[in-house]
Amino acid sequence: MSKQKESVRIFALGGLGEIGKNMYVVEDGKDIVVIDCGIMFPEEEMLGIDVVIPDITYLVENKERVRGILITHGHEDHIGALPYVLKELNVPVYGTKLTLGLLENKLREANMLNGTKRILVNSESKVKLGRLTATFFKTNHSIPDSVGICLETSVGTIVHTGDFKFDQTPVNGQYADYYKMAQIGERGVLCLLSDSTNAERPGFTGSEKDVGEAINDVFHKATQRIIVATFASNMHRVQQVIDAAEKNHRKVCIIGRSMVNVVNIGIELGYLRVPDGILIEPDEVNRLPAHEVVILSTGSQGERMSALARMASGSHRKFEIMPGDTVIIAATPIPGNEKYVARTVDQLFRLGANVVYSSGGAHSVHVSGHGSQEDLKLMLNLMKPKYFIPIHGEYRMLRVHAQLAESTGVKPENVFICDIGDSVEITKDGARFGPKLPTGNILIDGLGVGDVGNIVLRDRKLLSQDGILVVVVTLSKQKGTILSGPDIISRGFVYVRESEKLLEEANEIVSETLEKCMDDNVNEWASLKTSVREELGRYLYEKTRRRPMILPIIMEV
Amino acid sequence: MSKQKESVRIFALGGLGEIGKNMYVVEDGKDIVVIDCGIMFPEEEMLGIDVVIPDITYLVENKERVRGILITHGHEDHIGALPYVLKELNVPVYGTKLTLGLLENKLREANMLNGTKRILVNSESKVKLGRLTATFFKTNHSIPDSVGICLETSVGTIVHTGDFKFDQTPVNGQYADYYKMAQIGERGVLCLLSDSTNAERPGFTGSEKDVGEAINDVFHKATQRIIVATFASNMHRVQQVIDAAEKNHRKVCIIGRSMVNVVNIGIELGYLRVPDGILIEPDEVNRLPAHEVVILSTGSQGERMSALARMASGSHRKFEIMPGDTVIIAATPIPGNEKYVARTVDQLFRLGANVVYSSGGAHSVHVSGHGSQEDLKLMLNLMKPKYFIPIHGEYRMLRVHAQLAESTGVKPENVFICDIGDSVEITKDGARFGPKLPTGNILIDGLGVGDVGNIVLRDRKLLSQDGILVVVVTLSKQKGTILSGPDIISRGFVYVRESEKLLEEANEIVSETLEKCMDDNVNEWASLKTSVREELGRYLYEKTRRRPMILPIIMEV
Repeated sequence: MSKQKESVRIFALGGLGEIGKNMYVVEDGKDIVVIDCGIMFPEEEMLGIDVVIPDITYLVENKERVRGILITHGHEDHIGALPYVLKELNVPVYGTKLTLGLLENKLREANMLNGTKRILVNSESKVKLGRLTATFFKTNHSIPDSVGICLETSVGTIVHTGDFKFDQTPVNGQYADYYKMAQIGERGVLCLLSDSTNAERPGFTGSEKDVGEAINDVFHKATQRIIVATFASNMHRVQQVIDAAEKNHRKVCIIGRSMVNVVNIGIELGYLRVPDGILIEPDEVNRLPAHEVVILSTGSQGERMSALARMASGSHRKFEIMPGDTVIIAATPIPGNEKYVARTVDQLFRLGANVVYSSGGAHSVHVSGHGSQEDLKLMLNLMKPKYFIPIHGEYRMLRVHAQLAESTGVKPENVFICDIGDSVEITKDGARFGPKLPTGNILIDGLGVGDVGNIVLRDRKLLSQDGILVVVVTLSKQKGTILSGPDIISRGFVYVRESEKLLEEANEIVSETLEKCMDDNVNEWASLKTSVREELGRYLYEKTRRRPMILPIIMEV
Repeated sequence: MSKQKESVRIFALGGLGEIGKNMYVVEDGKDIVVIDCGIMFPEEEMLGIDVVIPDITYLVENKERVRGILITHGHEDHIGALPYVLKELNVPVYGTKLTLGLLENKLREANMLNGTKRILVNSESKVKLGRLTATFFKTNHSIPDSVGICLETSVGTIVHTGDFKFDQTPVNGQYADYYKMAQIGERGVLCLLSDSTNAERPGFTGSEKDVGEAINDVFHKATQRIIVATFASNMHRVQQVIDAAEKNHRKVCIIGRSMVNVVNIGIELGYLRVPDGILIEPDEVNRLPAHEVVILSTGSQGERMSALARMASGSHRKFEIMPGDTVIIAATPIPGNEKYVARTVDQLFRLGANVVYSSGGAHSVHVSGHGSQEDLKLMLNLMKPKYFIPIHGEYRMLRVHAQLAESTGVKPENVFICDIGDSVEITKDGARFGPKLPTGNILIDGLGVGDVGNIVLRDRKLLSQDGILVVVVTLSKQKGTILSGPDIISRGFVYVRESEKLLEEANEIVSETLEKCMDDNVNEWASLKTSVREELGRYLYEKTRRRPMILPIIMEV
């Protein structure tokens, strides 16, 4: 290869055109640095799938060049894929204290803690990664210890914001590093990658502290038990619930596996201030008067197996909702979860609870952790980038964010709206789209990583719509007759008891079809099966307008 | 039976604790009157189901006492179940001109037009239904010719609002009957049943005319083709799109089956004012300059097979989205459809379209057809009912509406929050809950009405999550050996090619299990099958953490 001009390549393996599985890559000559490594929750049509992770083929093929994975914060869509990815790509992981704390918990569960090199960083750290140098700046987000990343490359500075908003009254006093950001901007940013999640929302995103006040007001008015559901990972929110409990002389019982986990880590690492004796065990709850108790729980998304959903449906082992209890759902539904949350709210109302859920109004029990349009413009104006790549978002969010960037003075030709796998190549002279790199969704179902693909999903879809009919028949080929059967077994098709006639006629159709085939000397199994599938399919569609999967099993003696 | 005091019974067969399948029943002595007869779209877990209708067992059992079905307006959730219900309950249907027009179209498709007695009413009509008398008052809603219903019964006046809002600047000049409503209220309303759909929203619902202005502004700025998607049934919206086209010198092409239907009915019955020559056929669109065209289409909910979704995915037979086209989605997503709409918007942005979708803000291209809290209070204050039953809504909406009623002076003990099947019995002396009547969901899948129930749905759910394994084996019982097989056929479980080892081992498990059973002289088929299911299920769960359905087929020779 001839000596080329210095060139840096930026691309995403996840997080563009989608919400989740964030994974960004910066390649400077032979050195590769990865930023974040998250999961995505499955789309509705990915039936039976638990989570989705990025396809890292490109990284595995260039394993020896990957210098490390930098993590911006400890949310699942930024760290969740690490246990899978580190199995194929054992490189050091860099993160702040809380981020590593949450990651360690995850790696311990996967039995991978010892095999993984974890390096603690903070906003003072400077990390050499081949010819790249990474530094970090503090941001505000719905989890403490979030940082943005500044990469010095051979062509200039590349900044990745991570998830962020600007909170002028942050709960833990952890202000965003305005000076550091402004300084990076003043020195010159070649390319900015910035969070687009809320690019469609006008204005500034509210402060977490306002939520604390709203929660405190609700606590103040409540006369009986209070149940609060929120994201376990939102430690600021958890802190404010504990603070409100303290102010209102209530004890707090933490329930739900992930909530207990996060609270323990938060206490251990010093991110949660928990007054002595305020936490109580589930068994103590029913011994205290109702007005002295707060239950802090998971389930703010209406998840069926969560503690809140089980309380709402009256199937929790320990706790029952009583008329007059106050339930605060301190979260907004993630798109796609609206119906589950609504169902939970309904069930709670039916049990007589006073349910406080986010109206999105002024005095709301939830605010987003992502910056709205004015936050995004402020970031753009602090960084003053030459090139801009909107990240973290579905296509329309990236598009709107691009317009915001242009409104702050970034030249339209310097904005790159990318899909996952699209690469942007930047040299001292300019930037342009480079080659498309391999990407995709790796589906995780149970222990299987990637063993469920389009054919399996298509079959699940078909099965879910109209069920399956298994047709079993034994033939004597020599005699050209049916020896036994056909027997039809159906699952997910019709109530068998009410459809006896239909199934009897279906039986006849199969017999006739097979007999005709044998008379015509069609002896190939494949053809026999195809004929059964076609004739029976046609009959059933005509009678029921349904198309169950038909699985003929033809045995020969 | 002894002679009883006069008593009226009110209950719902659909529409309470749910959105859709509205069907309310008023029973005065031996006379039964039904109000509305709608469908509901299936919940997510009703896999493969097309629509849901109310269980009308009670009405069928009391067929000879049902005097008629009164329809408030022509939306699917109020008329959609009529073709099913009229087959079992052939009674006269009363509706306004447009309502009957839409219904007739539906009955014609079901070949039921001649067999159904349809009686035209308007706000002057007085209809005797046994001892009940019905009159009608005009309301505002997202379809013209909507009415509320006033029933004179032997114990007093019962008012059913239908779906409504108060629009002070209605598009067609069809103002709500304020005087008539106030007069009904002044004469005394015993019980009010009122629409709760938007009970959670503060303020008044906006006027449809504001939407017209917003649409006109977008038209004014557009330089190329305009595509508008909205609900076909919102004829006011359709009118405003045609008006905006006229003002901006554009022709209109109507596409999508239901949109074409509704526009034809609207023109025929005089509900749409369409200037001569403004409508063009799809074939003419591509012959006109882009800035002279509007395409008015279905698909505002992101429905996969709709005209808009096909344009967005580039698979429409006739129309292609070109960069610079303007797409207006003049609707908000119905809960559960958010992701589909977002996907469509994304695809349109990717094609370079300028997409205008409802932000819910001040200058919005959509307003709801249902009244918000102030509209609901105005209705309550016009009607001044003694008893109040909030209708049309999930439980939390009914609950909030009940609070609104109490805030306007209805006594808390006179408010009845009901579920479907709960009956309220009113006499001159008082009101109380009566017996629970049979109700439920009848699921329609293709041509099948009610032949899909819980077992079938449970099987579909199982199949959709982890697929199915069919295990086929032929045994010789005398010899106690396996003659052929086991063969394992899987669908929706794993990629077979990548899981050869797993399936081979599964095969061995089955063989071993059967051999052991035969050695132990377990010859009952049921036990053999159970053993195979258990052993194989255990093995697969251990290896994959999945639980496919296992269907053992054991043949004996």
